[in-house]
Amino acid sequence: MDEKARIELVLAAVQAAGARISGEAVVLGPGDDAALLRPPPGHELVWSSDEQVEDSHFRRSWSEWAGFAGFGTKAAGASLSDLAAMGAEPLGALLSLRLPPDLPAGALEEIARGVGEQLAAAGCPLVGGNLAQDPRGLGLTLDVLGHVPAGRAWRRAGAQAGDRLFVSGPLGLARLGLTYLEQGGDPGDPAWEAPLAALIRPRPRLALARRLQQAAVRPRAALDLSDGLARDLPRLALASGLRAEIRSADLPAPPAMLCAQLGVDPARCALLGGEDYQLLLAGPAELAGDELVDVGALVEGEPGEVLVDSKPLSIKGFDHFA
Amino acid sequence: MDEKARIELVLAAVQAAGARISGEAVVLGPGDDAALLRPPPGHELVWSSDEQVEDSHFRRSWSEWAGFAGFGTKAAGASLSDLAAMGAEPLGALLSLRLPPDLPAGALEEIARGVGEQLAAAGCPLVGGNLAQDPRGLGLTLDVLGHVPAGRAWRRAGAQAGDRLFVSGPLGLARLGLTYLEQGGDPGDPAWEAPLAALIRPRPRLALARRLQQAAVRPRAALDLSDGLARDLPRLALASGLRAEIRSADLPAPPAMLCAQLGVDPARCALLGGEDYQLLLAGPAELAGDELVDVGALVEGEPGEVLVDSKPLSIKGFDHFA
Repeated sequence: MDEKARIELVLAAVQAAGARISGEAVVLGPGDDAALLRPPPGHELVWSSDEQVEDSHFRRSWSEWAGFAGFGTKAAGASLSDLAAMGAEPLGALLSLRLPPDLPAGALEEIARGVGEQLAAAGCPLVGGNLAQDPRGLGLTLDVLGHVPAGRAWRRAGAQAGDRLFVSGPLGLARLGLTYLEQGGDPGDPAWEAPLAALIRPRPRLALARRLQQAAVRPRAALDLSDGLARDLPRLALASGLRAEIRSADLPAPPAMLCAQLGVDPARCALLGGEDYQLLLAGPAELAGDELVDVGALVEGEPGEVLVDSKPLSIKGFDHFA
Repeated sequence: MDEKARIELVLAAVQAAGARISGEAVVLGPGDDAALLRPPPGHELVWSSDEQVEDSHFRRSWSEWAGFAGFGTKAAGASLSDLAAMGAEPLGALLSLRLPPDLPAGALEEIARGVGEQLAAAGCPLVGGNLAQDPRGLGLTLDVLGHVPAGRAWRRAGAQAGDRLFVSGPLGLARLGLTYLEQGGDPGDPAWEAPLAALIRPRPRLALARRLQQAAVRPRAALDLSDGLARDLPRLALASGLRAEIRSADLPAPPAMLCAQLGVDPARCALLGGEDYQLLLAGPAELAGDELVDVGALVEGEPGEVLVDSKPLSIKGFDHFA
């Protein structure tokens, strides 16, 4: 199959999954040297890119239980989550794939379908991308562009002393699923469906972000928990020039029964776990609601320091290069 | 070196090379979940991504003569060229790197310096990116965002019957350099400096694009010659619904002496050669000037058909998957 046929196959699969390659803001979609977009007047652009690398972010063998679509949902979920973390609305996405020669028939279409499912759920059109042959392995890059009314993006900086800290859902689930797989667990076991789904099909919190942007009381700082609370909370605290204090008993940790099966501590898993793509938000106490779990507060103190149950945080989250 | 230290090293090297990580349009640069940009009112966004993959687009061994900086200049040049091809001004760039564990000390800084040199020459700030570990090989992705007054981008479609076809400079040089290397040529031979420079340090034609956008007579269609005239010209002709007629004697082919040394035909090399990143432009005859070489015309006829010296084009340009 030549390059043109592959591009057509990707675009067809993405659209079959419900995503669009056109839209109100899309002046020119796939097929030229670049895409042309018309951003809403008075808005700022929110721009990010995330890459999924074989044997670093996923293993090819996962296709046996997640399908190749799983790599697409994982890559697109991770990128769209960055838009949610800034409180932005999606404008468009570029999909770049590195394809190894030994990729089985149907894999490209499945990957595109997975990407399409996430883009469809986010209302984000696919407007371009890139296909490259890679003799060494499979890779997926999703570039996303969003928009937000000027001055309204949630940065890591901007939290105030006294702000409460909230997380938007379960922490450590994706890590628990990964640990289960690495210990040779059976991915077909229904008890492990939720951790494996968290790992392969993260749900970017775009709808929550939209609701919070339109609320009377809004977050003052945010980020998405891609590297784990233990690593991401110090980043937010440091950027805001504050100390964070959290209570381990309040963390929405994975089910104790599953943790016990792998011999891991639930609170530790919640602190360390990356790739959950839940939001960490700082703001007034009035933000509290069914979806937001209050886990602590930001206070005056050593910028970036984190106290867990009044003791300094002694573990670190995920570092790709550590 | 952990992730944070690597990011700081990249940002320092890019700035040491003269590029910025801030600017008038940059509301928030590197260091958050996403970059924030303020596009000029009334302009459309031009968005593209290009990826350089080890052993597909370059060989690690080239670092012996081009330095690791050469991979940076190649990747950034290829992406910025897409902005030139649309007649756009750069707004910002994201740099994503996949780093193998066996990368020598200093390589990351060199790569970043190469990227920085191209961004500096283009006046394009680096506003974010991504670092990932890749057990399998080195990879560079440059995402670029530009802007153009609404309705003024040069697409592949839009040329009219009777339009002249122009190329912005030498064709086939990069391919000649690649062929020379693959035949075991000595990269230190000064006679081969120009072909090797074309391969590793393409010069995106942004200044030319700016001049043409501001001229009284402007191009009606354009693309950058990344896959070779034999492949890219049919794309422009097809998109514009026209037939192209070119004369091989008018193609700015590589020096006959160098071609003879490798046993290749200069006109064939000019037709086939990819990665030159010169512009192919269609428009009124008045566009002709020192930088633009008239190579033929677009006429009524079978859309996408190309006649070379009145005979149908019988060779194809570069296809990553053919």
